[in-house]
Amino acid sequence: MKSIILASGSPRRKELLERLNIDFDIIVSDLDEDSIEQSKPDDFVEKLAYEKAKSVSMLTNKDSLVIGCDTVVVYNNEILGKPKNNEQAISFLKKLSGSNHQVYSGIAIIDTKSNNKYLSHEITDVYMKELSNDEIAYYIQTGEPFDKAGAYGIQGIGSLFIEKISGDYYNVMGLPLNKLYKGFNELGVNYFNLVNIIND
Amino acid sequence: MKSIILASGSPRRKELLERLNIDFDIIVSDLDEDSIEQSKPDDFVEKLAYEKAKSVSMLTNKDSLVIGCDTVVVYNNEILGKPKNNEQAISFLKKLSGSNHQVYSGIAIIDTKSNNKYLSHEITDVYMKELSNDEIAYYIQTGEPFDKAGAYGIQGIGSLFIEKISGDYYNVMGLPLNKLYKGFNELGVNYFNLVNIIND
Repeated sequence: MKSIILASGSPRRKELLERLNIDFDIIVSDLDEDSIEQSKPDDFVEKLAYEKAKSVSMLTNKDSLVIGCDTVVVYNNEILGKPKNNEQAISFLKKLSGSNHQVYSGIAIIDTKSNNKYLSHEITDVYMKELSNDEIAYYIQTGEPFDKAGAYGIQGIGSLFIEKISGDYYNVMGLPLNKLYKGFNELGVNYFNLVNIIND
Repeated sequence: MKSIILASGSPRRKELLERLNIDFDIIVSDLDEDSIEQSKPDDFVEKLAYEKAKSVSMLTNKDSLVIGCDTVVVYNNEILGKPKNNEQAISFLKKLSGSNHQVYSGIAIIDTKSNNKYLSHEITDVYMKELSNDEIAYYIQTGEPFDKAGAYGIQGIGSLFIEKISGDYYNVMGLPLNKLYKGFNELGVNYFNLVNIIND
């Protein structure tokens, strides 16, 4: 059976894969993300996802599927990364407050044996309620915004501010699961053959 | 400070409240759900949420906010409950496969001191990809469909089948968090005063 390798150190991606009841290893890519030139969000996240998966696939000689992923928050055609300090977190949240933004994730799966690849991306529209200055200040005090693109986490306290999404929720969390499943299928791997609850 | 009581035994609602970093107790309502006559989904889930919260609020004399909630899956105006057996799970999944359905949650919050109430509901549109007979059979083998309305869980393996939602994701998981936050505000309670990370 093929082994699964997640080429990401994100605790949220790890949590999502765990919920699918499959065994996997984590090998974090040493890709210098700044070496990838920013381009249109869809090209950019696919490129980063692919480079992460490729750099990890070269570190293993097992028969594996290596999953690379990258997620960005886009407001008004501007890519918002992780806020560097309080001021930037406030500025990001003020932009997103009371309006729609988009979350893009690229996903790449490389089969290290056949060298076949799956490469795709997902876009989800997110509407954040209007935030008062107090709400922004309180939210920043929780510390949650700082390791999150766009300065919020949809799976934590930030969930209280998201009134509506349109698209795949898991894309916003960082790993578009329906695309992952499609990718497995396209590479000829039946996810259900990997599931522990069935095979135990 | 007011205490928070969740009037539900659902592990998913418990998980969601835990992620919000607030302290709460669980008291499961002894309401006989079959005693509530089925009506239009929006009225029905509000009525059930309210009756659950009310029955628990009568068991406590603390100054509390009691949260009641009820969630149903609606396909083509038909309410789909938890499947009773394999055949019903197959039949539910065949209905939902390749089409849109709606998830309704009612939420009620009762302030036991003032007796003020918040009552609302949320609707989310969910699109499930087309499932093959094999996929349905595999999914049922995982056991996941059996304690879930509509025979799927969006937070587990069922996540692989959901291509798109429109609305609040947490409503589909069973507790519409943005409505919870609105309810706290309307009852004069600042959620951020309850958060452990800020107040510890």
